[in-house]
Amino acid sequence: MLRMSTLFLRTLRDDPADAEVASHKLLVRAGYVRRIAAGIYSWLPLGYITFRNVERIIREEMDKAGFQEVHFPSLLPKEPYEATNRWSEYGPDLFRLKDRRESDYLLGPTHEEMFTLMVKGEYSSYKDLPLVIYQIQTKFRDETRPRSGIIRGREFTMKDSYSFDLDDEGLAKSYERHREAYIKTFNRLGLTFNIVSAISGAMGGSRSEEFLAPSPTGEDTYLLCEKCGYAANVEAMKTKVEAATTSIATIPPIEELDTPNTPTIESLVAVMNEKFDGNYQGSDTLKNVLLFADGEAISILVPGDREVDLKRVAANLPGVKELRLFDDADFAKRSELVKGYVGPQDAKKFGLKLYADPRVVIGSDWITGANKLNTHARFVTHGRDFHVDAFIEAAEVKAGDLCPECSHPVIIDRAIEIGHIFQLGRKYAQALDLTVLDKDGKSQVVTMGSYGIGVSRAVAAIAEQSHDELGLCWPMEIAPAKVHIVATGREDEPFIKGEEFAEALESAGISVIFDDRREASAGVKFKDAELIGNPIIVIFGKSLANGNVEVRLRKTGEKREVALESALAEVKILAQ
Amino acid sequence: MLRMSTLFLRTLRDDPADAEVASHKLLVRAGYVRRIAAGIYSWLPLGYITFRNVERIIREEMDKAGFQEVHFPSLLPKEPYEATNRWSEYGPDLFRLKDRRESDYLLGPTHEEMFTLMVKGEYSSYKDLPLVIYQIQTKFRDETRPRSGIIRGREFTMKDSYSFDLDDEGLAKSYERHREAYIKTFNRLGLTFNIVSAISGAMGGSRSEEFLAPSPTGEDTYLLCEKCGYAANVEAMKTKVEAATTSIATIPPIEELDTPNTPTIESLVAVMNEKFDGNYQGSDTLKNVLLFADGEAISILVPGDREVDLKRVAANLPGVKELRLFDDADFAKRSELVKGYVGPQDAKKFGLKLYADPRVVIGSDWITGANKLNTHARFVTHGRDFHVDAFIEAAEVKAGDLCPECSHPVIIDRAIEIGHIFQLGRKYAQALDLTVLDKDGKSQVVTMGSYGIGVSRAVAAIAEQSHDELGLCWPMEIAPAKVHIVATGREDEPFIKGEEFAEALESAGISVIFDDRREASAGVKFKDAELIGNPIIVIFGKSLANGNVEVRLRKTGEKREVALESALAEVKILAQ
Repeated sequence: MLRMSTLFLRTLRDDPADAEVASHKLLVRAGYVRRIAAGIYSWLPLGYITFRNVERIIREEMDKAGFQEVHFPSLLPKEPYEATNRWSEYGPDLFRLKDRRESDYLLGPTHEEMFTLMVKGEYSSYKDLPLVIYQIQTKFRDETRPRSGIIRGREFTMKDSYSFDLDDEGLAKSYERHREAYIKTFNRLGLTFNIVSAISGAMGGSRSEEFLAPSPTGEDTYLLCEKCGYAANVEAMKTKVEAATTSIATIPPIEELDTPNTPTIESLVAVMNEKFDGNYQGSDTLKNVLLFADGEAISILVPGDREVDLKRVAANLPGVKELRLFDDADFAKRSELVKGYVGPQDAKKFGLKLYADPRVVIGSDWITGANKLNTHARFVTHGRDFHVDAFIEAAEVKAGDLCPECSHPVIIDRAIEIGHIFQLGRKYAQALDLTVLDKDGKSQVVTMGSYGIGVSRAVAAIAEQSHDELGLCWPMEIAPAKVHIVATGREDEPFIKGEEFAEALESAGISVIFDDRREASAGVKFKDAELIGNPIIVIFGKSLANGNVEVRLRKTGEKREVALESALAEVKILAQ
Repeated sequence: MLRMSTLFLRTLRDDPADAEVASHKLLVRAGYVRRIAAGIYSWLPLGYITFRNVERIIREEMDKAGFQEVHFPSLLPKEPYEATNRWSEYGPDLFRLKDRRESDYLLGPTHEEMFTLMVKGEYSSYKDLPLVIYQIQTKFRDETRPRSGIIRGREFTMKDSYSFDLDDEGLAKSYERHREAYIKTFNRLGLTFNIVSAISGAMGGSRSEEFLAPSPTGEDTYLLCEKCGYAANVEAMKTKVEAATTSIATIPPIEELDTPNTPTIESLVAVMNEKFDGNYQGSDTLKNVLLFADGEAISILVPGDREVDLKRVAANLPGVKELRLFDDADFAKRSELVKGYVGPQDAKKFGLKLYADPRVVIGSDWITGANKLNTHARFVTHGRDFHVDAFIEAAEVKAGDLCPECSHPVIIDRAIEIGHIFQLGRKYAQALDLTVLDKDGKSQVVTMGSYGIGVSRAVAAIAEQSHDELGLCWPMEIAPAKVHIVATGREDEPFIKGEEFAEALESAGISVIFDDRREASAGVKFKDAELIGNPIIVIFGKSLANGNVEVRLRKTGEKREVALESALAEVKILAQ
């Protein structure tokens, strides 16, 4: 039993100055966490109980799924991370240090290398697979801008698992086992979430999904179809393509037009409509966005009413490490590329690799640059006047874009990423030479999956989804205590009866916080109970004279007078 | 239920090349831990279950004692450690690093500063005290020579608690509460231990005791009286003093003696015995050991048959940071100090601060240097010819020295330090300004106690005390499983019955490892069971034909045939 009289806790009336999101404000005010440095927090007793409840549920679900727990150090030698190139790729996000012998170490930001090497150290045969091992461990990432309290910290706790399989089929099964275990885990954590298609990006691999907990202040943006449930993050959103409606044969030949003073799509559209008394729109024009992808000049074609989203480009060009827009100096070096008047007609001649947004379907014709100063062209037709090297999901995504599954307009929602599962493939196994002998005695590179849950972040995500203007409202399994008993007044009786009640609950295995403070006012105690957010509040106060206690449900605000003699049985049922 | 067929485990036949102590060898061979770098280990599934059993017991005992759990980060800002001067005092033992903004951080080697600041942040009144908070957290220390596997690592897990009290009386109570909680904890961990007086040394403070688990390969040396139970570490051992038996008045005056060629105590004693046909011994001569203590020249007097133990000197001169012996250059600078012929008679004249081993009692007379080349003196008497500034426990301790409590000769024993409790006092509270208002509204500096248990080290200490030549022999509460079931042979029945038995135990809450491997031989399975060290081994093999299983107790080696129908009930009782 926790007693408010001795609990190491001071609640705060005011929001901390640096807090922007609700979970951060409330976890600080209710005395759950304290800031130590940017993105680095300590847990006070109530916070740590809550954290351990979340951790316990995650561990139980992993164990139930048959995954085996291991534990790696935080302080890791450089060599394995050099073998996979991540020692340098991580850049300033990695905390690096030297030991007394000047050897290089890092603080583990994620443990792919270590898991791979551990399996390599123990296993050697296809008979040993499949294997899933996991750990719950502190991670360190030197974020540029740590924020939102414990949601994006520099030191945080993650559950990370890895699956090891002989072949893609096995990997698909291990992935599915994790997907199911994650659904069960997040349900038990009381989180509302969407499973969102993602692109694994820099990590390589194939299938990848994020578990996102919707929250108005979440950092992650994703697309959701409220009709069919399709959900994707911005990088993975697939464009719904409508085929060209006219035949190329009916499209007039390219017509060049004198178009001075058309620096923007709007001004171009206005000039065109004036010239032809037409109804042209931004979406009838074609933007040619010039980029260097690892030094190679590429042009990306998107309809004029859309911007190129570089994050989407990067995610969809997985091999590419550096991506940058042409600047004035680049244009100056290549005078054939006339800034503002580039068109795809001469891409091959100019040595540009040509990518197109899927909306630039074959057979569509466009108003675009004529590769001459102050000149545009119309009727520039895909499949006749230019041919692309590949389609790419590159255009920005907007609310109202059509769902690729059911064509219903999608909404854009914000969320907190609470989990991520993906098929890593053979990248790490290859780099670190994790092989097993197959049935025929041949050496095979193992294929891996990687699966993460933010443990400390989940505490904040639950707080984001479970609070109101008075404070936190924890789900039963997560709360620091199931029942918060408040004794009020100057008489001894409420304190004596409250204590008996608390003890009866505790001996039935129901956790209790007992507010036994004699000096605090009833008002202060009620406010604290609401702020702390345990699900059931039982008040031993004035109505005890009539043999009653008051039972409140924190989440709904429901209040009821209950006869003391039946209260214990009732609270036990509520606390299940 | 853990199944050997899928358990992530490969046992090893041979001891690892770098392992010297039994726990290290066995924890590696039985697949509990793996080395990642010097003093840095990973835990495999069996090891982590064992680790978590130890952690759980420690946590339960701390909670039972009413201590509250908090959790600090590992990555800590420099500033608090600068305020207490430990940023520099720690020297190369501290892992230091910079973040992306070039701010200094450290990896917590211990968290005194953080606990002090946490309490300062929340509390302000004497009414808030006493308080005990603890954490179970990873610690980092860049040991010069990490060794003995997980016993002395560079990354390890500790339980550290701190008590906060208004006054010394309160601190004494908090200390006693910890002492009791530690006794309970170590008893539950199945450890044999001695509580050994210690000197808190560099940490300051007053009362201090270590919990030492005797082990022949332990790093710690301590003195134990097998008669009365008195135990002390070398630094804290108190010399049993016998008063002088003769009166100063009867001692002849100082007599100077020509003693060339007496570079050692042995040669001096020989010359003296020759000169006076006497029975002089080394213990009749007096050594003058010259040192600089933070730059001040001091002389320490010890009987000639003893060396000065600098660790004891350091521990007994708590304010002193640097201690070094006079070297030839120092003697050269001070020609009045004749190397090999220094005596205490002129210490004042020479400006030497004089300390004496307690055996140099007032009224005792000695053969010592005469402060002239090739000259000694006898009848040099304490209280007549010299006076010391203070007594100090400086002489080396030897087996056979007398117990200060009961005068029985002590033995010297080796052990592993598993816990340490000590009264820190006001050092940290003062440095970090942790004060509370007392009853009269006056500001008072809080007094603190500090209490640690090595969690990962306890796993190794238990292994050191609980193993034999075949492998580990865990106590029931610590073992990765209480029952290890082995099915043998080519028939299905032992496997089917073994599985049923395992399931029955698991559903009764008794943890099981089931060796269900079809391809491994019975011999391999028995060897693995013995190496892994679960307390109860049940064998489903040939005797199943007669309706029997074999029940073995790992620790005693006892084996019995038990009828299958009664085996479950019997094993349940054994597993309690």
